[in-house]
Amino acid sequence: MASTEGNKLWGGRFVGDTDPIMERFNASIAYDKRMWDADIRGSKAYVKALEKAKLVTTDEMNQILNGLDQISEEWSKSAFVIKPGDEDIHTANERRLKELIGAPAGKLHTGRSRNDQVVTDMRIWLRDAITTLTDNVLQLMSTMVERAAAEIDVLFPGYTHMQRAQPIRWSHWILSHAVALSRDVDQLQEIKRRVNVLPLGSGAIAGTPFDIDRELLQKELEFDGISLNSMDATGQRDFVAEFLFWASLCLTHLSKMAEDLMLYSTKEFSFISLSDAYSTGSSLMPQKKNADSLELIRSKAGRVFGRCAGFMMTLKGLPSTYNKDLQEDKEAMFDCYDTVHAVLQVTTGVMSTLKINRSVMEAALSPDMLATDLAYYLVRKGMPFRDAHGISGKAVFAAESQNVALNQLTVEDLSALSPLFGSDVSLVWDYSSSVEQYRAPGGTAKSSVAAQVDHLREWLKKKTQ
Amino acid sequence: MASTEGNKLWGGRFVGDTDPIMERFNASIAYDKRMWDADIRGSKAYVKALEKAKLVTTDEMNQILNGLDQISEEWSKSAFVIKPGDEDIHTANERRLKELIGAPAGKLHTGRSRNDQVVTDMRIWLRDAITTLTDNVLQLMSTMVERAAAEIDVLFPGYTHMQRAQPIRWSHWILSHAVALSRDVDQLQEIKRRVNVLPLGSGAIAGTPFDIDRELLQKELEFDGISLNSMDATGQRDFVAEFLFWASLCLTHLSKMAEDLMLYSTKEFSFISLSDAYSTGSSLMPQKKNADSLELIRSKAGRVFGRCAGFMMTLKGLPSTYNKDLQEDKEAMFDCYDTVHAVLQVTTGVMSTLKINRSVMEAALSPDMLATDLAYYLVRKGMPFRDAHGISGKAVFAAESQNVALNQLTVEDLSALSPLFGSDVSLVWDYSSSVEQYRAPGGTAKSSVAAQVDHLREWLKKKTQ
Amino acid sequence: MASTEGNKLWGGRFVGDTDPIMERFNASIAYDKRMWDADIRGSKAYVKALEKAKLVTTDEMNQILNGLDQISEEWSKSAFVIKPGDEDIHTANERRLKELIGAPAGKLHTGRSRNDQVVTDMRIWLRDAITTLTDNVLQLMSTMVERAAAEIDVLFPGYTHMQRAQPIRWSHWILSHAVALSRDVDQLQEIKRRVNVLPLGSGAIAGTPFDIDRELLQKELEFDGISLNSMDATGQRDFVAEFLFWASLCLTHLSKMAEDLMLYSTKEFSFISLSDAYSTGSSLMPQKKNADSLELIRSKAGRVFGRCAGFMMTLKGLPSTYNKDLQEDKEAMFDCYDTVHAVLQVTTGVMSTLKINRSVMEAALSPDMLATDLAYYLVRKGMPFRDAHGISGKAVFAAESQNVALNQLTVEDLSALSPLFGSDVSLVWDYSSSVEQYRAPGGTAKSSVAAQVDHLREWLKKKTQ
Amino acid sequence: MASTEGNKLWGGRFVGDTDPIMERFNASIAYDKRMWDADIRGSKAYVKALEKAKLVTTDEMNQILNGLDQISEEWSKSAFVIKPGDEDIHTANERRLKELIGAPAGKLHTGRSRNDQVVTDMRIWLRDAITTLTDNVLQLMSTMVERAAAEIDVLFPGYTHMQRAQPIRWSHWILSHAVALSRDVDQLQEIKRRVNVLPLGSGAIAGTPFDIDRELLQKELEFDGISLNSMDATGQRDFVAEFLFWASLCLTHLSKMAEDLMLYSTKEFSFISLSDAYSTGSSLMPQKKNADSLELIRSKAGRVFGRCAGFMMTLKGLPSTYNKDLQEDKEAMFDCYDTVHAVLQVTTGVMSTLKINRSVMEAALSPDMLATDLAYYLVRKGMPFRDAHGISGKAVFAAESQNVALNQLTVEDLSALSPLFGSDVSLVWDYSSSVEQYRAPGGTAKSSVAAQVDHLREWLKKKTQ
Repeated sequence: MASTEGNKLWGGRFVGDTDPIMERFNASIAYDKRMWDADIRGSKAYVKALEKAKLVTTDEMNQILNGLDQISEEWSKSAFVIKPGDEDIHTANERRLKELIGAPAGKLHTGRSRNDQVVTDMRIWLRDAITTLTDNVLQLMSTMVERAAAEIDVLFPGYTHMQRAQPIRWSHWILSHAVALSRDVDQLQEIKRRVNVLPLGSGAIAGTPFDIDRELLQKELEFDGISLNSMDATGQRDFVAEFLFWASLCLTHLSKMAEDLMLYSTKEFSFISLSDAYSTGSSLMPQKKNADSLELIRSKAGRVFGRCAGFMMTLKGLPSTYNKDLQEDKEAMFDCYDTVHAVLQVTTGVMSTLKINRSVMEAALSPDMLATDLAYYLVRKGMPFRDAHGISGKAVFAAESQNVALNQLTVEDLSALSPLFGSDVSLVWDYSSSVEQYRAPGGTAKSSVAAQVDHLREWLKKKTQ
Repeated sequence: MASTEGNKLWGGRFVGDTDPIMERFNASIAYDKRMWDADIRGSKAYVKALEKAKLVTTDEMNQILNGLDQISEEWSKSAFVIKPGDEDIHTANERRLKELIGAPAGKLHTGRSRNDQVVTDMRIWLRDAITTLTDNVLQLMSTMVERAAAEIDVLFPGYTHMQRAQPIRWSHWILSHAVALSRDVDQLQEIKRRVNVLPLGSGAIAGTPFDIDRELLQKELEFDGISLNSMDATGQRDFVAEFLFWASLCLTHLSKMAEDLMLYSTKEFSFISLSDAYSTGSSLMPQKKNADSLELIRSKAGRVFGRCAGFMMTLKGLPSTYNKDLQEDKEAMFDCYDTVHAVLQVTTGVMSTLKINRSVMEAALSPDMLATDLAYYLVRKGMPFRDAHGISGKAVFAAESQNVALNQLTVEDLSALSPLFGSDVSLVWDYSSSVEQYRAPGGTAKSSVAAQVDHLREWLKKKTQ
Repeated sequence: MASTEGNKLWGGRFVGDTDPIMERFNASIAYDKRMWDADIRGSKAYVKALEKAKLVTTDEMNQILNGLDQISEEWSKSAFVIKPGDEDIHTANERRLKELIGAPAGKLHTGRSRNDQVVTDMRIWLRDAITTLTDNVLQLMSTMVERAAAEIDVLFPGYTHMQRAQPIRWSHWILSHAVALSRDVDQLQEIKRRVNVLPLGSGAIAGTPFDIDRELLQKELEFDGISLNSMDATGQRDFVAEFLFWASLCLTHLSKMAEDLMLYSTKEFSFISLSDAYSTGSSLMPQKKNADSLELIRSKAGRVFGRCAGFMMTLKGLPSTYNKDLQEDKEAMFDCYDTVHAVLQVTTGVMSTLKINRSVMEAALSPDMLATDLAYYLVRKGMPFRDAHGISGKAVFAAESQNVALNQLTVEDLSALSPLFGSDVSLVWDYSSSVEQYRAPGGTAKSSVAAQVDHLREWLKKKTQ
Repeated sequence: MASTEGNKLWGGRFVGDTDPIMERFNASIAYDKRMWDADIRGSKAYVKALEKAKLVTTDEMNQILNGLDQISEEWSKSAFVIKPGDEDIHTANERRLKELIGAPAGKLHTGRSRNDQVVTDMRIWLRDAITTLTDNVLQLMSTMVERAAAEIDVLFPGYTHMQRAQPIRWSHWILSHAVALSRDVDQLQEIKRRVNVLPLGSGAIAGTPFDIDRELLQKELEFDGISLNSMDATGQRDFVAEFLFWASLCLTHLSKMAEDLMLYSTKEFSFISLSDAYSTGSSLMPQKKNADSLELIRSKAGRVFGRCAGFMMTLKGLPSTYNKDLQEDKEAMFDCYDTVHAVLQVTTGVMSTLKINRSVMEAALSPDMLATDLAYYLVRKGMPFRDAHGISGKAVFAAESQNVALNQLTVEDLSALSPLFGSDVSLVWDYSSSVEQYRAPGGTAKSSVAAQVDHLREWLKKKTQ
């Protein structure tokens, strides 16, 4: 082998024992310290299993448990001091335990590997985070459902392709977004079941060679299940990937809602105005009131999906079992949690404080939005829909040609298009009656929207029990 | 308004009634024709609801049903002729129906919109596709589990960080991948529940204004539920996004397995050799036998995730309800289905035909892989693991210094490191005994691997019932 | 080794010589046939180098050249028949050559590998595609610049945060998008330089062992340079990745413009209306005129970026040199080309035919958009900007409180806020004068916008020479 | 409008003036403070332009310049105190200026907007970051090129499809990666030209209404050009997107190299061993020496591409001009810079300290890797390559059947396959001669590799001048 002097020949930037950049690159303590509590809880359970397996005495167990409690207190009081060499939270806690209780600390890692330890910590952390996020979504939904109940009588234009389509209830719009969030909750609970599986006792790859009672660990740590295969348990991060994608889809829902609200809050639409608590001004233009909260909500779906894409790309390139590349899992997980946590709360704030401008909303309804109703008028008189659609289109054209609103066409004008038109056509031009046609489940009639409110209230009650 | 002549001033590439490029850009028939069967099934159910609502007569219904059956036959015989103007499968089928039965065809679309029609078709199509993919995964898993059962006695090196770590069973490796696939099946079934929800009866945005019996539609089309809100029903594609991500994660699992197998099939490892049916030669190098199948499997996770990323990016930028951008949903869905369908089958082929080279696998086990066992030897004699880990590390170093294998150190050599070493240390150097230590659930001991096989066989039995 | 019978034990889906699914999975002819011309041009150049190296005789060369010309004709007349076994375009062309000219065909591949052949074909194909796309962008830009020149006098609101900000010229808006496209052109030309580098003569990995004159190949095939290292030449696809990202960024520009135009074409804004050639109707709502072209333009950035993300993920997981995974390169490249090609043309159509509603645009200007000018009025009288911004903000508030427009505040009202206000403040309330303040380069004054037009015309002239 | 009491009806989480979560969500100071120097440099230049435009007096200018210098000193000494309300670096610096010099501070923002200020800061910061990264790449390349020069005589197997393909020089492998990095440098310099364009003087959207001399600003701040259009200047982040993609492609190159090195450092290959400075041990297995540095390098391409994907997704959904969503630009930019900066340095460390195991590398060459040479032997005797390839394949099969190495076939064995074989075939079996055939540019012959070294040395010299 070449001697190290040889290296100088090609002049690398570093010759020595440890490259400080490598050390920083390798260390995860800066962010994984956030799992200090999960790490301690995991260790407390583990030492009980060690005691049961007679790998530590009861006395040693108690020393370790006390030491861990003391460390826990240090962390919760922000008194824990990270020292050089504490490359990750596991090393830091064990180093501190040794300082506190001496020799028995060296027994804690018996039969355990950082490979099963880190993933146990992550699962404990994430399942708690999921509980918090579930609460956040439920609170947002509850705000939306109650607002929908309170404002059920407000009509405004429903849009497709960003063009006015048909009159709908404002509450119908609110609930369309609440329903999407209910799917997010369902999916998050499914993911939680896959998160809440105990990997501890899988060692580095082959399992544990001692009589570690994994069911005891499961009970102590309140896991729903036990991992089936030690190689899979230590080498997979599907639960992180699933969570990152969940966060992406959830924020895509909120981005969609924010996009609608941004449109509605333009001067041109003027349907809503945000509370000052969720708007900001301009450094240049004194009259500006920008809906920054909505823009931030909209932007975060990108950020979070980027984390998902990045982690998936890292995962995709790997062979099985633990590879250091997996260290990318934690920052992605933390950042997505923090982002979704903040976005959900800000959205709740926005949705509970925005004001609607009912008169502008209703004034935005226009007779051309009833062109479908005009066609249905003919359908009800027996004309096939395709033909009725065509006649109604001709009426729209006739109105445009005469430069009048669709409802200003006379019965004569209409009769020229079809003999089926009679004076009762005037009943078509009523937005309130129009929406009341949509009584089938999921429609925009009052009864149908009220049924949605009821359904979601019931659903929320079940979820929050 | 400016006259069209004005346009010539700035010289666009096209002046006329319809831009043919726009027309092609807009049309989806080239790929959505694939849903012809779902579209016809949806229309058959819909006409029954129309009849119940008295919007068509029983006679008209029967004409429509017969016409649709005839169209179905044309498609299944590849006799259906797409005509100019058939921009999508819905238009094509309705145009053909009109040709076949005349006027009553014009009633079929009453109260329906392409917005609820297309998403109904997609959900029918996708739920069937999911059934097929589930079968594909189960067949692959079954192949793997049976292979694991048959080859349970084969030992070989387990790797972490791509470095030899500890002796494991070959079957333990197989099952680590099978377990990941079982999560894919679980997740796919959860997604299917969200796919299999009826949107028909949601119209374009506001719902249906007629007495369309949505429960009848649900029963006819065998959906598990009914969409709650018409705006959400027509404007969301979460079920597609979820499916695309599922495909990505599933193929990431197979990419990981392929990566392992590629390593194992290098000349340097020589653990396995692929069947000729899954290898190819080189146009230049006569001796080459490339594991193309594995490389293709590995590559497809990227392709599929790209579809997911692309669709998510398209989704993310949208306001609510139907926007034409959603048209990107179908090609992504079809391509991911086709890709996963092929990959799963090829992987099943690879896994059922590859040959293992047992003697090479076992010869690759080396005494240094038992360094952990050496530490455990000391642990069992009462030394704290941290100290034992250190002593074992010194033994590894001593062996390297003497340029001998770890198991060639004499008891004297070892005793110099710790007085706890005795002649019984020789029992450590047995790979078969080593793996048998890992009897805890999920470990690599024979009983533990056999339990995994049993568990998965039982699980498969339930899933295939 | 285990016998094949053994396989039946674990019941794979296929036992036999060749798995037909694997064969289809492996074959690329369905899409790479598109490079038939590049493949033939490459082979024609290569046989000349073979002749120079005396590896074929002049007579053999001529036979091969004639054969290749004949194949070329078959392709261009759609008369080429793909046969079973033609797994890719290279195999197909060589198979056909053999049929046409017999034995000498077997010499064509001397010293060549599919590894250097395929990447040569791709580079020839892509550089031509880039030329076409460059023309498409330039035509779009030219349309935009001429439109900007023609409509330079139209004012309308400039928006930030989707809120009315300051009055600007419509042409200023047009040019803001044209300028982004000019960067796309610059970047595309840089990429082209990296695309147009000859890899032929790199063999499979080690280079060519014959006296193949690579400079001759370069000249024949009109490449700008010769690859430096054969392993890199055959194993890298950076030029594809760069192209895919270019396509993503370019379409992000067009998505941004489409998003603006969609806003402007809502009923609420009513600034523009699209030509019927770029709009479509609704299957349900007779009055709808949807801006489908804009929605499609907007959606494609997602699709194309998905291709980029997918290919990057595939690339990322690879070791060096040729791996079959690289086969994902072609579909991504073709799809991005086709998409960008269509989007650019449709956008040109949209931009050359849309009509602006000048009166509505100008009526949308409102005095509050001059609040910054009011502050500048004070700045010009010596007040520090921060203070002036504050006073102007108070004026906005005063007007809102009195429920009048900002310009309806009396001089007395204003004087109460600052003694610097005088009767000349009335000059502030003129949109035309307001925009004329922005004379610095890049601003919205007429002279400044005209200078942008001139600059881009000049730039376009250089690019199209 | 509804009264605020109404809000309580639907119970949002927050009612009050400012939502603290919104405030934190909105603030960027935590990360954009990193641009303090760029912000101060920008302001110093801007006040000079204000003075030239007579918007501040010379005295005021000097006060502002002195104040800014003082703030700069505070930052560089870590003495700057961020206060509540300092939402971003621009606000913080201006607030501090006011504290230091009073009233004149209020004039600094005249005609400037945060929209043009922030993007000016970013461009200054990024162009400096690019300079650093360029140096990092050049140092890595230099290390690699010199190593290639020093170890030019070492042969080892070249792999395609991860299978042994042909003998190559180790230096040829090194240079294949260095060449990829040279493209990264070229591309980075192109990007830098687009980064280094002055946006200052663009205001919020419309430009500047004062006589701000943008050429003066350009000179003061050493920009290469001036932005053409104020709306584009303030609303585009293409330069960030380009940089993020550059980072992704560059790290994909390093991931590819790391993947190779990881293979080479497995026990099974044993071609190289990493310096201890770039390896780590296992918490469980005493014998393990993991190539963590390589795994980290490999993983970071995912992380960085995730940032690119996330930002592209955010960008894609936007209309034109400044939207708050753009705030996602900075964390992505900083994180990619930091990551690439660290990865490049660690890679330089790895490449300058790893040791090669020449004897193992050369022992890994095997006669079957010369099967192509055997075919070429026949080609040189006049056989068409296709036929020669076939004969050589038969020879490989014959050797396998006889269970001997390819070079142990007798002349008789070979003659049975083709009469062209003679005793001179023995000359084929020499790895050194084999590689020497590849003398064409880019090949693996010594002269050709030496030419690559010379070329890159020359290129490096130019770049570092």
